[in-house]
Amino acid sequence: MAGPVASSALVGRVLAGETAAIARLLSRAEAGSPECRPALREIFRHTGRAHVVGITGVPGSGKSTLVAKLARAVRDSGRKVAIIAVDPSSPFSGGSILGDRIRMADLVGDAGVYIRSMATRGSLGGLARGTLEAVDVMDAAGFDVVVIETVGVGQDEVDVVQAAYTTVVVSAPGLGDDIQAIKAGILEIADIHVVSKCDRPDANRAVTELKAMLALGLALSPLPDWSVPVIATSAETGEGVAELLASIDRHWAALAASGQREARRRRICERRMLKAAEEALRERFHRHRDGQVSELVERMLRREVCPHEAARELLTRIHMEA
Amino acid sequence: MAGPVASSALVGRVLAGETAAIARLLSRAEAGSPECRPALREIFRHTGRAHVVGITGVPGSGKSTLVAKLARAVRDSGRKVAIIAVDPSSPFSGGSILGDRIRMADLVGDAGVYIRSMATRGSLGGLARGTLEAVDVMDAAGFDVVVIETVGVGQDEVDVVQAAYTTVVVSAPGLGDDIQAIKAGILEIADIHVVSKCDRPDANRAVTELKAMLALGLALSPLPDWSVPVIATSAETGEGVAELLASIDRHWAALAASGQREARRRRICERRMLKAAEEALRERFHRHRDGQVSELVERMLRREVCPHEAARELLTRIHMEA
Repeated sequence: MAGPVASSALVGRVLAGETAAIARLLSRAEAGSPECRPALREIFRHTGRAHVVGITGVPGSGKSTLVAKLARAVRDSGRKVAIIAVDPSSPFSGGSILGDRIRMADLVGDAGVYIRSMATRGSLGGLARGTLEAVDVMDAAGFDVVVIETVGVGQDEVDVVQAAYTTVVVSAPGLGDDIQAIKAGILEIADIHVVSKCDRPDANRAVTELKAMLALGLALSPLPDWSVPVIATSAETGEGVAELLASIDRHWAALAASGQREARRRRICERRMLKAAEEALRERFHRHRDGQVSELVERMLRREVCPHEAARELLTRIHMEA
Repeated sequence: MAGPVASSALVGRVLAGETAAIARLLSRAEAGSPECRPALREIFRHTGRAHVVGITGVPGSGKSTLVAKLARAVRDSGRKVAIIAVDPSSPFSGGSILGDRIRMADLVGDAGVYIRSMATRGSLGGLARGTLEAVDVMDAAGFDVVVIETVGVGQDEVDVVQAAYTTVVVSAPGLGDDIQAIKAGILEIADIHVVSKCDRPDANRAVTELKAMLALGLALSPLPDWSVPVIATSAETGEGVAELLASIDRHWAALAASGQREARRRRICERRMLKAAEEALRERFHRHRDGQVSELVERMLRREVCPHEAARELLTRIHMEA
């Protein structure tokens, strides 16, 4: 047992929306504690109701501030909202960046809002372990909208965001070339585009460019009758935030009306299974580091097997492990 | 057979350093063609001589320009150098960013330099498939120094860079908060720090801050008698580039002298095996998408199994596949 209260004892309290129980279960999920697995399994059975929204954008796009404003708007519409922010964490501080939380200060103290920053554990640990389990916990706890916020760089971050029904990609005017290049890789996954910082003079050009790209038909949504909107927002003035929420709600309704919501649900399950399988593979790899892995490494060092052959053998050897 | 010439017929020509054969084999490795596997296996047997150097840095750190200058310096020292640049690719252009290659224009036409940009295939494909195989090809083809350049964001990029004997992390003064946060995640992996754009007025502060961090002992190198240097460079004036190359060479010598080179070699094999296993897992997942995977998805949709259970079952079912 990992703590004074068994995780399984927390489930009922999580389902009742009790904040302290939610926090405790999330911490255990993030720590990867095997003790909480049965609890998470039980939680999963109570999921499927929340509108999971992925929001991603390049560094400097101002997405954290936007997410805070959006959460306020969801709240004002009478719904409960949870935010799961996947932040790069400093190995020096060991924690998540405080900036986002400070920006979200005006949401604190409202039981209808839950904000959780997930650390990414530097460069070596699994990226954002427990993020998708956190979505389950929020969903089961009765939050109507669950926002996953990630920096839109790297395969893992994009995968996480795609475990959502609606994906919002945030751009900002006037970023550098390197940043723009990274941005290009995530434009295709958007159900909704946002151009933030629209109080800046070059914002119009950014909007026009995005619309031109969409007009070329290069980022067609699979959803019939859904043309990907481009929304200009300003976290300063609050401009566009209501429009963004309206778009997110409209997308959710369109998914249901077209029958695509089931297709997304299926896709989300697929991605979650793959992510969990990758995680299990890494866990087993580390567990066998001194045994099977090290023996295969020796054979690679002697150039008897190439990495591909070693990998195949590894998969065969460790498959039967729990 | 994937092309007019069987990949196995290319091996001898690659070992002889023939540029056209190298290019062809790299393209097939990047495409993930199974036809080239035996050739890559044979290539792997001829690797282990090159000094593989990973260079990473946040967007906007100016690392591509620095890499070009460094390649020039390696060349001027009489050695052959290969650069493998992992670029975010635009799904709209389908190709890699041209910027880097233009900056490297003064190296073109020299047979002792080989530059290869690897696409990252947008958000959906495997990240930089074939990157590590490309390192093997360059190593076997007789390049003395092989530089892997990646954007230092995301687990995959960091993993790729760590398949190196010497890791250089490039920072730049005056980047935004979001960028700085991302940077924090990669500081710990540096054998050598570079602060680029040292012609900028705020460069001194960046150098001082890095040195202060290192002095705190929070990023100790496992290499005895190696204190991680912080080198200020300017791609404009060329300042610091010779010093960087000298540091890289000194690190390579120190690895050998301390016996740590073998430890790194072992670590590289380990990482490559894990990466290859992850890739094989994803391949099998996609191959069984309509069969085993879809059946497990149905059970997840009915909430009979949670993602973790589905993943375990998946690993058991697909392990015996080729």
